[in-house]
Amino acid sequence: MSEKLIQWKNLVDFCKGILMKLSVTEKDAFMVADNLVSSNLRGIDSHGVARLDRYVDGIKTKYIIPDVKPKIAKESPVLANVDGQNGLGQVIGTFGMELAINKARKSGFGMVSVFNSNHYGYAGYYSMMALKHNLIGISMTNSAPLVVPTFGKNALMGTNPIAVAAPTKKNKPWVMDFATSTVPRGKIEVYNRLNKKMPLGWATDEKGNVTDDAVRVERNLKDLLGGGLLPLGGAGETYGGHKGYGLTVMIDMFCAILSGSNYGPNVVSKKEGKIVPPRVGHMFMVIDPEYFIGINEFRTNMDNYIDELKNSEKAEGEGRIYVHGEKEFEMQERREKEGCPLDDKTVEKLLALSKEFNVPINFIN
Amino acid sequence: MSEKLIQWKNLVDFCKGILMKLSVTEKDAFMVADNLVSSNLRGIDSHGVARLDRYVDGIKTKYIIPDVKPKIAKESPVLANVDGQNGLGQVIGTFGMELAINKARKSGFGMVSVFNSNHYGYAGYYSMMALKHNLIGISMTNSAPLVVPTFGKNALMGTNPIAVAAPTKKNKPWVMDFATSTVPRGKIEVYNRLNKKMPLGWATDEKGNVTDDAVRVERNLKDLLGGGLLPLGGAGETYGGHKGYGLTVMIDMFCAILSGSNYGPNVVSKKEGKIVPPRVGHMFMVIDPEYFIGINEFRTNMDNYIDELKNSEKAEGEGRIYVHGEKEFEMQERREKEGCPLDDKTVEKLLALSKEFNVPINFIN
Repeated sequence: MSEKLIQWKNLVDFCKGILMKLSVTEKDAFMVADNLVSSNLRGIDSHGVARLDRYVDGIKTKYIIPDVKPKIAKESPVLANVDGQNGLGQVIGTFGMELAINKARKSGFGMVSVFNSNHYGYAGYYSMMALKHNLIGISMTNSAPLVVPTFGKNALMGTNPIAVAAPTKKNKPWVMDFATSTVPRGKIEVYNRLNKKMPLGWATDEKGNVTDDAVRVERNLKDLLGGGLLPLGGAGETYGGHKGYGLTVMIDMFCAILSGSNYGPNVVSKKEGKIVPPRVGHMFMVIDPEYFIGINEFRTNMDNYIDELKNSEKAEGEGRIYVHGEKEFEMQERREKEGCPLDDKTVEKLLALSKEFNVPINFIN
Repeated sequence: MSEKLIQWKNLVDFCKGILMKLSVTEKDAFMVADNLVSSNLRGIDSHGVARLDRYVDGIKTKYIIPDVKPKIAKESPVLANVDGQNGLGQVIGTFGMELAINKARKSGFGMVSVFNSNHYGYAGYYSMMALKHNLIGISMTNSAPLVVPTFGKNALMGTNPIAVAAPTKKNKPWVMDFATSTVPRGKIEVYNRLNKKMPLGWATDEKGNVTDDAVRVERNLKDLLGGGLLPLGGAGETYGGHKGYGLTVMIDMFCAILSGSNYGPNVVSKKEGKIVPPRVGHMFMVIDPEYFIGINEFRTNMDNYIDELKNSEKAEGEGRIYVHGEKEFEMQERREKEGCPLDDKTVEKLLALSKEFNVPINFIN
């Protein structure tokens, strides 16, 4: 088995095909597939098709219900609380963001909080949905506990990501999208697989001390032995670890405490040996610049700021200053042309799904 | 000259008295005084009365206009863009937040972006104004450029703080309030004064390299020689410095690009040797949980989450896990009883103002 390349359209069809064998409607299956493959195109492979088997498992073990529709539980012209009914996170997320966009198109603003959902893919997908309407989009989600609070021993909070997308004129849109931990779990997994020492400041061991031992951290997280990822800013307060810890709690507040979903240590899909719906929460917010300075001037000034940042002097030894989203848009252009590379472990997983569900998969090489 | 203690009420009266000698109305002078002293009470001395002389200077040199009223430039039931008319930041900020609160009380949500303002004190003051109405409050501001973008050499962005306050039931409200740089400038100033080496990761030198030399960083910032504070997450991308950089730009976007104010490197009060209004921007947002899960359940679950965090196991050698705002509320209780301590430099400044404007000041010791 080795790394393979695949055309993104073939990858969408494959994911769609698998999900449709599991009672997911064609429309819903496309939403999930588009979200996963878009993540691969943008270089966020950790949230791409490598996760397809987890969604399949979720449906099989019934903590994800494939054939329900999200339901509006409470609504005003600008706000809504949505019950995901434990369906597919991407379907619920797309519903929530579309609702927020429609509200913003009518009233200049929309905010939708969501309860009873599942993993919704990468946060940036939803924030970027606002761009084609010339709106600012925000997306947040909580997630399973992996992050320790400042001075704490146990992982009580998710890596809770936040994404913000803003329209521009000549530059690519500004798209910020990140986990509020120092690094996402995927980075620890890579160091674990390579048996390589991590930089000190990413994670703590089972006693709560900073460690460079990725194998230990991965084992501890898997067996709930204590320790976990550090919030953005690292251990203690010296480098602002309490700030990342605050952002993580804030996202739990917007996504889950506000909507009435599970938060912090309660976002789990197994409880007392039983499979349970994790009841993940999301929050979507959409703002129309036309109600403030006006969309035209907003886009022009986003461009001006981006240019000022990119064209400013570089630190010694550095060749380029990036703005948020730039790397991902460049990756997307390349991968749309050349195909998406998939690592051997992902190829193996997809081939197993192909066989199990009798859905063909066509690689380039 | 040495450290002195003063009753907070006397401190409010003193600040009010000084400002009223500069054509500030009694009502507006109280707003500024209350904001400054509240910062001292909460232990955020960097944003307290130590800054009174800067506001006095701003009025004297006319980049702050003491006798204007903020004006609503554009408005909808939930949104507004406000022209601060280069008045006192605290007066404009209080106006903006009250407007957002009134909108949220009627429609469940309010968002106000502000242009043509000045330094508004500490961000948490405004977010906490929402608490007595059982609403969630958010406050952000941009500020003068002190922070370098990831891989950049020059300070192009402010330390742009964000504050979020959420109501609780039995615990103190949850109040997150921080600069999006690794540390605020005040910390560098302290190390500079003590001629002490800083931790590596707070700031860069004039070439853009990480340095522990606070004296050099302070001199470089003052003379615009290059380098500056690092965004939350530190230098490069290893510890997520690009995340802090993103947050800082996001806050400029909400506060200034959206409102039509100065952003990034343009927030300066001196240009080509001339004094100019910095045209600082703010953003206020207020959300009513009643439109989501309901205020009662929201407050109960905030308490539950806070308790889960506080009562969880501590990392080895640590005695306590804090939640956001807790330290500040404890400090406030103590200082309301015992008085506010003022360092010798601040005492000196206040005595000079007392003499210049003939306003008496009464210390405890």
